[in-house]
Amino acid sequence: MVLLKDIGERQLIKDFRSFIRTAGVVGPGDDAAILDGGIVITTDSVSFKRHFPKGMTYEQFGWYAAAVNFSDLAAMGARPTGILAALSLEEDMESQDVYDIMSGISQCAEFCQTGIVGGDTKPGYGTVACTAIGSMDGRKPMLRSGAKPGDLVAVTGPVGGPAAGLAAIEYGIDNEDAKNSLYLPVPRVETGMKLASLGIVTSCIDLSDGLGTAANILCEDSGVGMDIGTEFIPVSSCVKPVSKETGIPMFDLIFRFGGEYELLFTFGKDRIDELHSAEIDFSVIGMVNDSGKAEAVRGEDRREIGYGRY
Amino acid sequence: MVLLKDIGERQLIKDFRSFIRTAGVVGPGDDAAILDGGIVITTDSVSFKRHFPKGMTYEQFGWYAAAVNFSDLAAMGARPTGILAALSLEEDMESQDVYDIMSGISQCAEFCQTGIVGGDTKPGYGTVACTAIGSMDGRKPMLRSGAKPGDLVAVTGPVGGPAAGLAAIEYGIDNEDAKNSLYLPVPRVETGMKLASLGIVTSCIDLSDGLGTAANILCEDSGVGMDIGTEFIPVSSCVKPVSKETGIPMFDLIFRFGGEYELLFTFGKDRIDELHSAEIDFSVIGMVNDSGKAEAVRGEDRREIGYGRY
Repeated sequence: MVLLKDIGERQLIKDFRSFIRTAGVVGPGDDAAILDGGIVITTDSVSFKRHFPKGMTYEQFGWYAAAVNFSDLAAMGARPTGILAALSLEEDMESQDVYDIMSGISQCAEFCQTGIVGGDTKPGYGTVACTAIGSMDGRKPMLRSGAKPGDLVAVTGPVGGPAAGLAAIEYGIDNEDAKNSLYLPVPRVETGMKLASLGIVTSCIDLSDGLGTAANILCEDSGVGMDIGTEFIPVSSCVKPVSKETGIPMFDLIFRFGGEYELLFTFGKDRIDELHSAEIDFSVIGMVNDSGKAEAVRGEDRREIGYGRY
Repeated sequence: MVLLKDIGERQLIKDFRSFIRTAGVVGPGDDAAILDGGIVITTDSVSFKRHFPKGMTYEQFGWYAAAVNFSDLAAMGARPTGILAALSLEEDMESQDVYDIMSGISQCAEFCQTGIVGGDTKPGYGTVACTAIGSMDGRKPMLRSGAKPGDLVAVTGPVGGPAAGLAAIEYGIDNEDAKNSLYLPVPRVETGMKLASLGIVTSCIDLSDGLGTAANILCEDSGVGMDIGTEFIPVSSCVKPVSKETGIPMFDLIFRFGGEYELLFTFGKDRIDELHSAEIDFSVIGMVNDSGKAEAVRGEDRREIGYGRY
């Protein structure tokens, strides 16, 4: 008898693909599916069990439930056109808390220049499943599968903040910056659209499962490897003190936790000027190779980057 | 302190509308939302807690999770173009049961001429939230709000089967027909598309919350009333014996339970020949009036039809 927990998430998604058909331009397995007509759609659920860290408000939980979905649209370069929310909640929840969740979803949607277009509420155990829908507006979608040896690897902003936030909560450390980056992730929708508009990105993914997992997925889906120079990674200022106080290695906080919503992408190294002139925040952190492995490099040191574990 | 259970479902949906914006042709509050470009989208979640009656298989549960969404598309007259599934499941579930849920979703999608285009799996408590997407293909969507006094009221097929199935399970009665109509509801996608193509339907809704609730919603949203002649309602043959054995009145089995997926619709009475020539199964069961109430009529008897309670 094989239980659900015995199957890795990546394996489960692979198994599920046998049930899934490619209904349009891009099939499932990427951040979002693309249907005929350039419609982009993705669904992701969050639960009180797993995504409601201590100190988070219901409004933030709602924002989070929406943000993880908009982030998947951002990774493809899509413009959000709406979000739906299916709430499955305990019946003895305070109604105000439920309205706060809706308000959080709505605020995140507004931040992404769109709104809630539908939903459903059922008695349940504390799960919010949002579905975000978007449009490519003629842009070519950014996939996980196009990175080529020689491409540069870049990230759109600092990493490690949410991991530090989670660690701060677990260890009872007072660090508001860290906690807030965990509670209120910013989906990089505008950046994603700009990147896709340039037409120079060869692969892209969001960091929702952590930098380590994201790097490994790009390598696996593109059939390449990559070296990431750890000293080039932009790291949130809150990470170092939290690492010091908790004893959790910087490497782990940077690579092994999820809850991040920056974008990791690759592009041809001769196109870097176009990125600079497009007013996109980014840091080059490595280079694609043909090793088949994602490795962290610092001077002579070289270390394989595992999948995340958050 | 107001708890979620103290607020009626209809009131909750009304309260939620303040968070919801109309992003396209039809806003939320109908069976599905319609975005610009004639994209129709709806989300509905089911849970082990509430939608997994004794004797149902995991495959049937998956079919059910998909069917409730396709039924919402059917009520608008949309052609399904894909479905997404967000699974939130206990980690100690048997993996085969999870694959069976996916298989059931996939089979229902295939039945509706489409497929699964994406999804998500998270540890949780047993909720499956599907999102169905569809296209109007230029047809005018059927709404809940256009019924006019004088219109005829019709239903696309027999009712009461799922209610009888639920009663049979609760009372331990052996009635396979009743149980199967509960376990494997058939979303009326093809009928919905045909009805919308005719362009003669003034309002439409599916029976997922029961015939009584559906009739009341059409009245409320259209600002009308209706008389339904109980002797004209097509009733599944399994309903009478179950009513007899359980002592649950026929009226309740017909009006007060959900889990039905036929369509209730209204149309101008001078257009009935067009319906007949379109090879659509339907039974005229009543007439729209301006009373503001949905009432069941039999001879001289007249009785207000309440909202369902399933």
